[in-house]
Amino acid sequence: MDPDALAKAFVEHYYTTFDSNRNGLANLYQEGSMLSFEGQKIQGAQGIVAKLTSLPFQQCQHSITTVDCQPSGPAGGMLVFVSGNLQLAGEQHALKFSQMFHLMPTATGSFYALMIFSG
Amino acid sequence: MDPDALAKAFVEHYYTTFDSNRNGLANLYQEGSMLSFEGQKIQGAQGIVAKLTSLPFQQCQHSITTVDCQPSGPAGGMLVFVSGNLQLAGEQHALKFSQMFHLMPTATGSFYALMIFSG
Repeated sequence: MDPDALAKAFVEHYYTTFDSNRNGLANLYQEGSMLSFEGQKIQGAQGIVAKLTSLPFQQCQHSITTVDCQPSGPAGGMLVFVSGNLQLAGEQHALKFSQMFHLMPTATGSFYALMIFSG
Repeated sequence: MDPDALAKAFVEHYYTTFDSNRNGLANLYQEGSMLSFEGQKIQGAQGIVAKLTSLPFQQCQHSITTVDCQPSGPAGGMLVFVSGNLQLAGEQHALKFSQMFHLMPTATGSFYALMIFSG
């Protein structure tokens, strides 16, 4: 599978999980993962998921507009840049969002998010 | 200087240069640099600057809203995520923008942009 297809598959899985079962995102982080979000840095799968589940909205739907990907370093990592729209339940207008994922391969051949930036 | 301050200084220099003299951005890239932009990948300082100077607007002004930074790898690199507004001359409303920079140290102690994602 080529890197662009892998990146797209990860991102689609990530937002589908975010929109349907935010706690399920824990499988996509590890202890060394770090989320940068509105000036905060949050480390570790548990802390990141606690942050994401505490966001002040429940139902939401992400629509992806662009996914760009570049290989990163000798360990098989990828930098993935995503932009799109975020529709919150009860809101008339969607919000624009963009996120950056630094993905690293796991021992089982999938990927986890080593770093995540939200803007 | 701490990483957050370095990242902020680089980003401010980058957008001041972009808005005043886009050709001057060539100093902030090297031959291995790559720009991902609207599905395209463009490699090398010369090609990247050619792309940026060919964008369909001349006068513009970037206002930075957020700069987030995480260290990246053993070589002293940094991932920097920027969001803000882009005001084009003659347009009533500013555009939202976000960009990701993978910065690497140069031999002279400054930084260059190894990878750049625009969204």
